[in-house]
Amino acid sequence: MNHLLDWQYIDDAVWSKLVERAVEHAQHPSWSQRAAGKSLGMVFFNPSLRTRTSMELAAAQLGAFASTLTPGQGTWGFKFGTGKMDGAEAEHIVEAIGVLSRYYDTLGVRLFASGTDLEADRQEVKMREIIQASIVPVINLESAYYHPCQALADAATIHEHFSGQQKKKRFVLAWAHHPKPLPMAVPNSALLQAVRQGMDVVVARPESHALDPVIMDLATQTAEKSGSSLQVTEDLDGAMEGAAVIYAKAWGGPMVYHEPKKEATNRLAYAEWQITAERMRKTDNGVFMHCLPVRRDVVVASEVLESAQALHLRQAHFRLFAQKAILEAIWGLF
Amino acid sequence: MNHLLDWQYIDDAVWSKLVERAVEHAQHPSWSQRAAGKSLGMVFFNPSLRTRTSMELAAAQLGAFASTLTPGQGTWGFKFGTGKMDGAEAEHIVEAIGVLSRYYDTLGVRLFASGTDLEADRQEVKMREIIQASIVPVINLESAYYHPCQALADAATIHEHFSGQQKKKRFVLAWAHHPKPLPMAVPNSALLQAVRQGMDVVVARPESHALDPVIMDLATQTAEKSGSSLQVTEDLDGAMEGAAVIYAKAWGGPMVYHEPKKEATNRLAYAEWQITAERMRKTDNGVFMHCLPVRRDVVVASEVLESAQALHLRQAHFRLFAQKAILEAIWGLF
Amino acid sequence: MNHLLDWQYIDDAVWSKLVERAVEHAQHPSWSQRAAGKSLGMVFFNPSLRTRTSMELAAAQLGAFASTLTPGQGTWGFKFGTGKMDGAEAEHIVEAIGVLSRYYDTLGVRLFASGTDLEADRQEVKMREIIQASIVPVINLESAYYHPCQALADAATIHEHFSGQQKKKRFVLAWAHHPKPLPMAVPNSALLQAVRQGMDVVVARPESHALDPVIMDLATQTAEKSGSSLQVTEDLDGAMEGAAVIYAKAWGGPMVYHEPKKEATNRLAYAEWQITAERMRKTDNGVFMHCLPVRRDVVVASEVLESAQALHLRQAHFRLFAQKAILEAIWGLF
Repeated sequence: MNHLLDWQYIDDAVWSKLVERAVEHAQHPSWSQRAAGKSLGMVFFNPSLRTRTSMELAAAQLGAFASTLTPGQGTWGFKFGTGKMDGAEAEHIVEAIGVLSRYYDTLGVRLFASGTDLEADRQEVKMREIIQASIVPVINLESAYYHPCQALADAATIHEHFSGQQKKKRFVLAWAHHPKPLPMAVPNSALLQAVRQGMDVVVARPESHALDPVIMDLATQTAEKSGSSLQVTEDLDGAMEGAAVIYAKAWGGPMVYHEPKKEATNRLAYAEWQITAERMRKTDNGVFMHCLPVRRDVVVASEVLESAQALHLRQAHFRLFAQKAILEAIWGLF
Repeated sequence: MNHLLDWQYIDDAVWSKLVERAVEHAQHPSWSQRAAGKSLGMVFFNPSLRTRTSMELAAAQLGAFASTLTPGQGTWGFKFGTGKMDGAEAEHIVEAIGVLSRYYDTLGVRLFASGTDLEADRQEVKMREIIQASIVPVINLESAYYHPCQALADAATIHEHFSGQQKKKRFVLAWAHHPKPLPMAVPNSALLQAVRQGMDVVVARPESHALDPVIMDLATQTAEKSGSSLQVTEDLDGAMEGAAVIYAKAWGGPMVYHEPKKEATNRLAYAEWQITAERMRKTDNGVFMHCLPVRRDVVVASEVLESAQALHLRQAHFRLFAQKAILEAIWGLF
Repeated sequence: MNHLLDWQYIDDAVWSKLVERAVEHAQHPSWSQRAAGKSLGMVFFNPSLRTRTSMELAAAQLGAFASTLTPGQGTWGFKFGTGKMDGAEAEHIVEAIGVLSRYYDTLGVRLFASGTDLEADRQEVKMREIIQASIVPVINLESAYYHPCQALADAATIHEHFSGQQKKKRFVLAWAHHPKPLPMAVPNSALLQAVRQGMDVVVARPESHALDPVIMDLATQTAEKSGSSLQVTEDLDGAMEGAAVIYAKAWGGPMVYHEPKKEATNRLAYAEWQITAERMRKTDNGVFMHCLPVRRDVVVASEVLESAQALHLRQAHFRLFAQKAILEAIWGLF
């Protein structure tokens, strides 16, 4: 395990061990000095609540040192790509990452989708530029298309909840209405981890908010490999029936890149796509999951978040356990 | 000791032990690993110099881990209360605190008064919502009406200065002019700790800037219990006579909630309410205290801050010692 | 070693030991608990990438605790000098530093040049006010006129590169074009460390961008003492010939204080002052150095940064090693 851009580049065996290790951390929280003398530098180009705090704490619980940078808040802005630097950015990402990767044993970087250049986002052009400039492993803390730390936490949460018996259980990735066209990193990663775990996956979304075909193809291949199934539907209510997991998430989808006005109009038309208590009753005693932050009474009814079916806080807690496992793997500690 | 919203909810015996423990820390500064494996997460909705740095250092000196979040700077904004979340805030405080209280052993929260809803501020509606959402103890790092960390530091500073003989000494809470109508948390807490310690307390302020009657009533009851006295005056010069402690503080008072223009006019009219060297000479070799930050030559003359009577820097240093004691108490370490 | 405002106030013997110690750290990176129980508080009035991260890491690698404050971001703004405080700043620097120097064993402060008051910048009026208010050592993390942490890192980088045989080698401080009139702290410090090391120094700059005569005089005196030489030229190409080190840096110079428009016009006219690969070929296999951040294809050609002659990333790495040595010296650890 070198860089962690996304799990598709990591073997199933490593992935499975990491899921199990995360569950172990959940069941046996601990502080140690196992990673004493190791250091993690994190760069957040976008806001964070859980990722930053849980990663700092994961490092501390292993005895490692962590530090966080927020470009533009107490640091210089960074330039990517080529071209004469006579604009606002005072430093190139190649130098910034070149330096930071000499200071720290591992880097973590959050850098959301541009929302304007689909091909660049799909190709992870900026994150790849960062990885290229680094002489140490880089952990993706949510990039344009992937959120591997969230995906491992999701998988381990499900693994714990179903005592490892999640195979062939129905996992619904449910598109939700939202006032903004959010990026696709979380739904992409949630989908890919679910098929990888062998769950029977249903993506419920309006036609206008289909995920990128590139991701759907990757999910289909993964499903074939793991013996799971992948379906797509526009019928949210139908999708709920028999579901074991409802994973709600808003996203703008590829349409926002080329037809932003149409995307907004369509999104507004689907305000009814909210996870309500009534819908949860259609599931097979299913649990509600969400990566957070979540908008109450827009994406999901408050009632659902406060019900016994809500797993979102345990899921958020698993961010800590999953990231301890990731740091251990990168630092050769298990 | 569970949450620390304010000292009125904590027994006198615990309070007294904490004052003594803070003085011990002042006299025997130390670093240890006594709280190794403990963690503190702090959320600052408002600026801080002393509170953040002294709390981080207090945790470090005990071997614990501390982390600080500033909502809106590198995190999402948070929504309080009910209602559909289709506005600017991306996350509800219930989820945010729900998650953070799963990561950390203890939380600390700073959240100043609204300045617009007196009853909500008086009832600590937002801080109570945070406490309600937390599954671990929450330390109030200054809320709408209280600043218990400051109050303990103030009490311990006085205890050290008078070698425990502060009972029946004259403590003057002196309202001061200021360009802004500041919140009441510090004067409320300063007043309550002084009567609790059995000092003879005088609140000197213009009639227009009386403290909330709810707090004055609580102070009166506390004074009766501790055998101290509580007086109110509009005569600042008279109040200074025989004083052992001058505790200066600007505040807007309840009037700012319903008659903000009148409050501003009155405040401007009382620019003369400044602690000068001449006024300090009227005291019985009294000391000058202030929670800081303080506006020089507005609230207090520079000359006073630089005189031998100034105790404000020792008082600020006591923030560290007091908070070490608070963390020890919460973590069952003494 | 008490405060570290600039190396001119520190003996040659201490300086030489620090250079050697920095090289030792570079060659034997280590984590220890040698400075356990020590603490460093840093205040950044201006942005930082390397200084903050490398200083925090230096402290951590020695077992010490470090914390960072950014005035105006989660803290109050600070007032300097005299006068009634009825403006925007809520706290005076005398109180802020008075308090912080009671919390921490050592302070570090970054405070760039005003760019408007030459005599105040030259006299380091603000940094001296901070030092005056502190009861513990203050490390200059880049002030109006000096950047001693950078200077030690530069000297140690050169010492390592030339295996201690840098004496009488040609060091060119090369002015570079830039969209902004940058401060002089780095060129001042780079110049002073080079003459102190006994290198033959050439300052290549347009006449309009001469350094402050006060600094040139100090450099001349230092050169005499160390047996090195100091020349000034307007011929950048000529300066390159035979050079062992090209140290590129943009600066506005004293002219920006009294004739800002003329400075801007002149600066624009010298866009050709860029370190290109062609120019590097004129050197005696010279290395390229820069303090970073650097503007690619403005100050230096990308090609140079990616060549074998580029030493800038090693130089940035030396910030960590140099600052470990500085902290050790201040804390009496070597």
